[in-house]
Order: sequence, then C-alpha cells, then structure tokens
Amino acid sequence: MTEKSELRLLKNIGSPEDMRKLSKEELYELAEEIRQQLVTTVSKTGGHLASNLGVVEMTIALHRVFDLDTDRLVFDVGHQSYVHKLLTGRAERFDTLRQKGGIAGFPKTEESPYDAFNTGHSSTSISAAIGIMRADALKGVKRNVIALIGDGALTGGMAYEALDDVGQQKLPLIVVLNDNEMSISDNVGGLSRHLAKMRSARGYRSFKRGFSKLLKHIPLIGKWLSDRFEGLKNRIKYFILPNVLFEELGFTYLGPINGHDIEALTEVFEHAKQMDKPVVIHAITRKGKGYEPAEKNPEKFHGIGRFDISTGESKTTFGNSAVFSDELCRLAEEDPDLVAITAAMASGTGLDSFKERFPDRFFDVGIAEQHAVTMAAGMAIAGVKPVFCVYSSFLQRAFDQLVHDVCLQDLKVVFGIDRAGLVGADGETHHGIYDISYLMTLPNMKILSPSSKEELRACLDWAVKENDSPCAIRYNRGVLPEREMSGEILSWECIKPFRSVCVVATGRMLDPVMNVCRDLNVGLYNARCIRPMDEAALEKLSHAHYVVTVEDGVVNDGFGAQIAAYMSRIGSGARVVPVGVPNRVIEQGTVAEQDDECGLSEEKLLETIKGCMGGIYA
Amino acid sequence: MTEKSELRLLKNIGSPEDMRKLSKEELYELAEEIRQQLVTTVSKTGGHLASNLGVVEMTIALHRVFDLDTDRLVFDVGHQSYVHKLLTGRAERFDTLRQKGGIAGFPKTEESPYDAFNTGHSSTSISAAIGIMRADALKGVKRNVIALIGDGALTGGMAYEALDDVGQQKLPLIVVLNDNEMSISDNVGGLSRHLAKMRSARGYRSFKRGFSKLLKHIPLIGKWLSDRFEGLKNRIKYFILPNVLFEELGFTYLGPINGHDIEALTEVFEHAKQMDKPVVIHAITRKGKGYEPAEKNPEKFHGIGRFDISTGESKTTFGNSAVFSDELCRLAEEDPDLVAITAAMASGTGLDSFKERFPDRFFDVGIAEQHAVTMAAGMAIAGVKPVFCVYSSFLQRAFDQLVHDVCLQDLKVVFGIDRAGLVGADGETHHGIYDISYLMTLPNMKILSPSSKEELRACLDWAVKENDSPCAIRYNRGVLPEREMSGEILSWECIKPFRSVCVVATGRMLDPVMNVCRDLNVGLYNARCIRPMDEAALEKLSHAHYVVTVEDGVVNDGFGAQIAAYMSRIGSGARVVPVGVPNRVIEQGTVAEQDDECGLSEEKLLETIKGCMGGIYA
Repeated sequence: MTEKSELRLLKNIGSPEDMRKLSKEELYELAEEIRQQLVTTVSKTGGHLASNLGVVEMTIALHRVFDLDTDRLVFDVGHQSYVHKLLTGRAERFDTLRQKGGIAGFPKTEESPYDAFNTGHSSTSISAAIGIMRADALKGVKRNVIALIGDGALTGGMAYEALDDVGQQKLPLIVVLNDNEMSISDNVGGLSRHLAKMRSARGYRSFKRGFSKLLKHIPLIGKWLSDRFEGLKNRIKYFILPNVLFEELGFTYLGPINGHDIEALTEVFEHAKQMDKPVVIHAITRKGKGYEPAEKNPEKFHGIGRFDISTGESKTTFGNSAVFSDELCRLAEEDPDLVAITAAMASGTGLDSFKERFPDRFFDVGIAEQHAVTMAAGMAIAGVKPVFCVYSSFLQRAFDQLVHDVCLQDLKVVFGIDRAGLVGADGETHHGIYDISYLMTLPNMKILSPSSKEELRACLDWAVKENDSPCAIRYNRGVLPEREMSGEILSWECIKPFRSVCVVATGRMLDPVMNVCRDLNVGLYNARCIRPMDEAALEKLSHAHYVVTVEDGVVNDGFGAQIAAYMSRIGSGARVVPVGVPNRVIEQGTVAEQDDECGLSEEKLLETIKGCMGGIYA
Repeated sequence: MTEKSELRLLKNIGSPEDMRKLSKEELYELAEEIRQQLVTTVSKTGGHLASNLGVVEMTIALHRVFDLDTDRLVFDVGHQSYVHKLLTGRAERFDTLRQKGGIAGFPKTEESPYDAFNTGHSSTSISAAIGIMRADALKGVKRNVIALIGDGALTGGMAYEALDDVGQQKLPLIVVLNDNEMSISDNVGGLSRHLAKMRSARGYRSFKRGFSKLLKHIPLIGKWLSDRFEGLKNRIKYFILPNVLFEELGFTYLGPINGHDIEALTEVFEHAKQMDKPVVIHAITRKGKGYEPAEKNPEKFHGIGRFDISTGESKTTFGNSAVFSDELCRLAEEDPDLVAITAAMASGTGLDSFKERFPDRFFDVGIAEQHAVTMAAGMAIAGVKPVFCVYSSFLQRAFDQLVHDVCLQDLKVVFGIDRAGLVGADGETHHGIYDISYLMTLPNMKILSPSSKEELRACLDWAVKENDSPCAIRYNRGVLPEREMSGEILSWECIKPFRSVCVVATGRMLDPVMNVCRDLNVGLYNARCIRPMDEAALEKLSHAHYVVTVEDGVVNDGFGAQIAAYMSRIGSGARVVPVGVPNRVIEQGTVAEQDDECGLSEEKLLETIKGCMGGIYA
C-alpha cells in the first residue's frame, strides 16, 4: 500500500448521494482511497481493520442501490461499519475514531441518521431488522431493510432464531452474508462446512478461475436461477448445492457473488430489492483485502491496537490473557483432565498457544457462548475440568446457562473472565462491568479478582486444583503489575494496617489505590476474592469510620454495595463509600479517561479518600 | 381412560432391567399402565402431562436399547422425564411428584444415577451431551450418549449452536427428535415449516395411512437409506426431502418414525447405536396421547395444575397473567402502536386473548428469548411500542440483549415479567429470583413491582403511556389481591406511618406483611417501584432504627441490599434487615413452603419484625 498525498474523491463525499455520481472507474479509485484511509487511521487509533478492508466494495454497492435516508441497513457486530461511516459524512472526522468524543468503532444512531441500530455484539442484526420491518408494516412505512452479517456471526444461535422467523413469515428482508471464510478465529461448526461447500460449488470455482470476467456474459447464478427457472425451482435447487440450507429456512438464495466486484454486487442488490421476499445474498470477500499484512494475518488484524503501516507490526499486547493462558498450559501439562474452551476468541483470550500445545483438549465452539457454558457443564459432570476463557461482556450471552447448568448443579467449571471492567476504545457495548453483580447472586459461584500477575496465576491454580465449585476469575484488558503475593486466595491481604479510614480495592484497582495511599494514614486491603468475602477482614473493617471500596464494575450493585449491605446488616457504624462505574452509559475513550469519568483515576481516588479523612462526607 | 385397580406390571418394575424381561405385548400393556399412573398422579399434583403421555413408547424403547447404567440420556427441558422416572425405580414414590422432598418434575442427578444432567429450561440437551461425549473421549470411556429433544426446543438458537458443533466434529451423538408438531404454544419459524414438510413427505404420509403395519415388511426409511444406498447417499438424499436440513448440518437422518411403535423405535435405536456417527432420529408423536382431554387440548395440558380426571377441568388459574393481558388488550384498543411479543408462552402469559383480538400485533417467536428482546428493540427504534411478556427465569436467556440492545440504546420496551419470585412446584430452575438484581445494574432500566391487581394495571398503563425508557414490571405466579391504589407509581405508598422500626415490602410480599404488621407499632411502606427508588421515602427511613425490607428475590444483592447500601452511603444509622431468598438452591415445594424456608412466611416475618422491635438484633 502506497501512501497518496490526498484522497481526491473521498474528501468530496459528503453523503452517499455524492458517491452515486461517480463513474464505475472512479468507484474503484474511491475504494482504493477508502482502504488507504482505513489503514492510516487504524494504524494510529487501533480498531477493526481486516473486516473493514473486506467490505469496501460491498458497502459502496449497498450505498449505490439503497437510499439509507429511508432504507435501513443493520450491521451485525458493527465492527465492519467504518466504510459506511466514511461514505456518510464522517470522513473528515474519521481520525477521531474510537477516541473520546470521536467517531465510534461501531454504528451509533446518535452519531448519524444513516446508522439504523447500535451494535457491538454478534448475531443481533437479523432480529433488529425484523423488528424494524414489523414496525414498518404496522405503520405503513415502505422501505428496504438490509442486514449485513458475517459468516462468523451466523454461528451464534440467535441469528438462527431470527432466520427461522424471517423464513416462516416470509418477511422481505435482505440478508447480505459477508462470507470471509472465517469469523474472528477460524470458523467452526457444520454451517461453516456448509458454506465451504458453497464456496467450492460450481459457481464459486468458476469465480475463482476468473468468474468476474465471465460474469458480464453470464449473469449471476442467483438471478439466472430466480428469473428463468422460477417454475422449476424445487427441482433445480438440488443441482445447485449452495442454496439448500437457506432455501430450507424459507429464503431465496442468490450467490455466491464476488464480494469485491462492485458491478456484480450492484446488480444482485438491485435484483434483491425488487423481489419482495426473504433473500440471502452470499458474497465472498477477503478479510484484510488490499493491505498485505492484514490479508496474511486477518485474525491479528481483526481487532488491533496501533501498528506500524510498513511492517504491520502491532504495538499493543494484552498481558493478562497471556499470563492466564501460559499458566493454563502449565497446569495442563500436569493434569490430563484440564480442557480449555473458547467462543471464537482463541487469539483474543491468548488460548492459541493452548490450542497448539493441546489440540485434543482445546474446543472452539464458534460465537456460541450459550453452547460453550452448557457444554462445559456437561464436561464437568462427566469428570473433566473445563476452563472457559471469555470476555466479560460476551459471557452475558450465557447468563442463563451459568445459572441453570453450572451453578444450580454446582459443577466445577472455571471461567477466565477476560476484559473485565472498563475496556476503553471499544466503548459501552464491550465493558465488562456487570459480572460482579450478576455472578454474586448465583448459588455456589466463587468470584476471584486478582490484583497482580502472580495472584492471577495463583487464582487459576486454586480454581483448578483446590476448588470444587464454579469459579470465576476476572481480569482486565491490559497488564496487571508484578507483585509478590502473600496470604491465601480466600483472604484479603492487609497492605496497610487498619485505620479509621480504610480502603478496600479489588483487581486492577489495587495498583492505583496503592499509589494514592502510599503516604496517607489509611488502612488498605487487597480484596482478591469477591465471593466469598473475607469475614474476618470485614469484621475488622466494621470498626472503621469510613470504608472506601474501589472496583471497576457497576457501583450501585456490586462489590462495594455488598460491603455496605453487610455493614448495615450487622449494625456497624462504618460508612461505606463505594467507588466504581456508575450505571449509565460510559462511552469510548481510553481506559484512563473512563477511569477518570468514574472517579477511578488516582486524582479522583485521592480526592475521595482525602474527603473521608477530612470527614467531609460526615 | 378407565381406572384399573392395580398396575400389575408397573409395580414390578424396579429398574429398566425388569422392563427388558417383558414380552412385546406386555410392553404395550405397561405403556397403558404408565399412562394411567401419569394421569392419576398429575391430576393430583399438577405438572407436565401432555408431553409425558406423548413419550411413553419412546421412553420404553430407549430403555430397551440403551443401558442407562452406563449410557447417558439427556432430556431437553426435562418436563418429559416422568416415564423415565417410572421406569427407573421411582414408581413407588411417584405420588410425591413436584412436592417438597418428593420426586422432581425434571431430571435430577441427585435423585437417581439414571438421570444424566439436570434440566428445566429449553434447548440445552445437545450442548450438555456434547460435553459428556468430549469428556468421555478424553477419559477413554465408551458409552452411548443420547439427547432427547422436542421440535419446540429446536427453535431455541442454542440447540442450533450445538447441532452445528456436533455435525462439524462428527461426534457420534444420537439425537432423538420428539416431533409432536408443537412446542408449548403452536410452533413457529422456518424449521417448523421444514418439519411439517417432513411430516407430509412420502414416508410420513404412508405412515399416516397405516405405516405401522407396512413397517414390518418394509423396514425404516432411514435404515433402508443408510444400509443399502450408502454409496449413493449424496444423490439419493435429495429424493427424500426430509433429511436435507440435518444432513447439511452433518447428521445422518433416520425417519420419520412412528413414535408410538415400540418395535419400530427399538429397531431404529439399535441401528443408531451401531452407526458411530451423528444421527438424528425423527419420531412423530402425539402430545397428550391416550388421554382424550389432553389430546384435544395439549397446550392446556402442557403444564397444568390439579385437574378432574373425568372432565379434564383444571383447578388452577394464574390471575396476574390474565390481569396483565386484559389490561394490555384494553390499551391496545386505544393505541394502534402497541404490540405484544411472546416466546412460545402465549397461553402461560395470558397473551392468547391478545393474539385472538389483535393478530397483526401479536408475535410469537418460538422459544427464542434472545431474538424476542432484540426484535423488540428494533420495533421500538422504528416507532412502535413492544411489550414482551416472559417468565422471569426465561428472560435470563436474554440478559445480554437487555443490556446491549435495549438498555444501552435506551429504547422503550416494556417487559411483563411473569412468574417473578418463587414459583413453587417447578423448583429451582424456574424461580424468578434474579431479575431485581440483574436489572438494577442496567442503564436506563426502570423496575416496577406492583402489590395489587390495580397497581399491576397502573404500572402497565404508566409504562406504556408515560415512560419513555425500558421498563420491567414484575409479578408473581398467582394472584395479587384487590386493593385500591393511592399515590403515584414512582412513589412509595406509606401504609402505616413512620416508626423507629419500619418495614418496606415490595410486590406480592406486601400482602402478608400487611397482615403481620396490622397490630404492630411499626411503619410500613409499599415499594411499588424498585428503580428508581423513592428518595423522599428513603430519606425518611434513614431516621429509623431498623428498616426491614421484604422481597421475593435473592436477598444478598437485590432490593434490600440496595437500601442498605444507600443507608451506609449517606451515613444513616438505620440498620437494614433484608428478608428475601438466600442465594442457595431452593428446591420444589409449595410457594408457602418455600416462603417459610426463606423467612418470607407470615410467621417468620413476624418473628423478624418483632426481633427488631425488641432490639434483639442490636
């Protein structure tokens, strides 16, 4: 990729209307400019690169055919909405991507009327689109509704629930299946095999041998199918393997299409628009297209921190995931019953090393957290020791399975809850701030919250070797400090002895709190276990005047609230001042900015603790 | 159904081994006896009748072929496990069904080694079975694993996530699809249409015209297919429409089979056992079979209270569902934008009347709570007013969608949370005790908890007409009392004026608390809104010595805990004594028994309140 001095076409695209005036040749030039902008910006801000490079032509074609002033386009996950943002008046501000007050990394209705629905998590688009269509039908609104979904997101059961509904009701939804032959990790599951079969079917094999040329003479397979052989459809569909699954669900299948051919895409979108029934358009794209390092390593460039454009070298690592994963590998050497599970996040959770070393004991179920948790319960009941590594915000998908399958049966499943707490640039959909609260209520669940790398390792050891119940270990996106551990996992470490003002910090918050308290005359405790609480320490704390609790989770119903309830219940006069994340929307920014917004920065913490010391809360 | 004086065969079945000794004729006699036992017991205890009547022969055949001393049978939902219980040494105690200390209405590993995995919620069986199989593979255990799943449970996306995984990995799981042509409500979705097509395919049409006779001469379609035409499979499968969907997912499809023909089922199970690859056996059954009232009205007899055997007349009604639904209909008359959503619970939530009156505005998405919630969000963003009626414990399935799609976007979706709190005989999997806790943490969510029918109606009116954000209205399984409402929804009603001991009760708990407090010198408040809290009332309460909070939700992290945290935060000396459900497993029994276990009976409440008055907690 060579840098150009200016983006001649892109800078003049104020709205999709401007884009529609371009010639076919200019559209490809625009695509090139968009790729350049994507790489330049993401190299500085971090973000989702590979997926956006894959949908440049597709997004251009969508905006050519559909008028999003009225039509509605729902992005699944939404990490592939950058191109759409560049085409809808947000190019100029695009360098603020994922920054505080800047352009979001996901669709945001607050940001633009062209964004139909906010996303961030997988597999929601078809459901949201159905909702919009049903509302439209009731209100007599006529417009097109399109869901753009990747093959990975189709491994989430929720997408299937929705497809099932569309097919039955014959809702004229247009589903664009962006098939880049992988989700975040390599794709898994029968559907994936099915799509693979589609890709290797007649149409796509020809496509690979120069289908784009051919296309001008023999139009799209889908069009050919539906236009000329409508009457014979039922017989014919079995000649064309690809469409069986979708047809069975009630969709008309169009494809496979070259997802980088703007003309072909335009034609098929136009066709779908006129069909007035459920349509799936299967487009094959290449993740990372046009930027070599991303094409070669699309998983790495799925969600990436800042990187060097010329080499593709990344500047960010997530230390805790690696610490957890390394320790897991060490334990797996010793214990043949230990198995690791991921829901399409082998790389993000650091499990790729486990996968390599223990392939027989590694299970990637796709974007299917519900299945992952219940499968883990099944494994536990049959005598092995499953460890499910999952981002906190994605574990929300499996809340009922946590309750119903794991906790009520008191099964030994270990949860490595990665990306717990505030996550920074991914914004509000990705914060892992609810886990403490919802895990606290579940029978038999233990919750550990290590404050250092050593504690993180020790927590995992304890959960695997000593504990016989469900256990969650939460750790933040980032790196916990090195610090020697003293005492037992289920006890709170007293770092500074009891004073009339005591501070209790948990997890990553301990480090800044230690900095703040170093020269203050306050007690300080490291609450590395959130459940059970250390009753002896609580008893001691009940004699304090102030107990300041510090956590990176929702504050109104989390760790601090529990301590407050305890104090009230036993009739302690200690006043609990909980510091944590308020339960409103905390938007994107750096973690430091979000900490500050939540009163969790060192400066704000100092203010709060000093306030207690001065009795200003009295 | 005629009553017999004794169940000659059943009473001698101490284990499946005893059953295997019976002749073919005796097996059908046993089936008849089992039906009689089911109807007799459930008429007295209430429970799931229709589904169990449908699987009598299937369960007998499963126990003939598989040895559950080692093999593992995972029931989906598990409400159809009664026959299995009768055949595995639990016939003698079967009259204790669903009673405190008695036989559970769902599989329970604690109850019998023949129960492989605890269930209660839908669509988990395949995931659990996969977990068991993967553990077996690692541990070198050789045994058969069977998942028995209904066609309704297949509408849940989680089941699809699991099917996808089985198919890809070629795990030799035996899935028995119990297709009774309905889930709890009428089935919905493309899959259902697909199954309907299967039913009407050649094999099943013949079956309807006396297939069972034919079967002895022409063996099973599946067997015929797989034994004789293995090599031609890929071509042949397209002649036999039914198997396409499952084959696409990587399964060998056997069926459709007459699910009431013990011999046919035995043969196909034997066949599947020897195949050592993923198999789905599609058996067609009749829900309610053998008991006329249940055959005629299987939805009513899905989960039923006590009933009169001769007439089938039921003795239980769930008043709150009807109150809510009637009010919803009234509002829908006035407001054309109001729509109602259910996840296969039209009857249970009382929405069947809405469905009848406003068919265009009624949406049953199947057992697909995730899809339901996100679809509701889509509807709200497009300008209509969705009300999703759902059991509290099933809403757990859509926790992430609540966070991600509804609350973060601050969309006006109303949740009618039915069966909130303790639910009685269905036991621990069905309690709606977590909702207060997990909803409290979500941005923009309001939580209402009416204590009377009038308040229930007023809450719904307010949520639909006045409020512009997500709103949850929780109400118990049962009937709230008639009581005139005074004051505003978002204020707490002061029922007895402030005293040094004050009691704050919410929802259905107000009624017993009023009884208890009638002659006591205590203050009493009706907390009909849980979020936001009534700050003025809280300020007043902060001057009390004791505040006793009473809720039917988990007590360590719910309504009372919030009040305690508030008191501690503002430095009030008030001591909060929260009464509610402890966060351990609360087993089946009557709601009254469960209340007593949790300290929520009038007797226990009186004790607690008097304790505070006497200062014994001081």
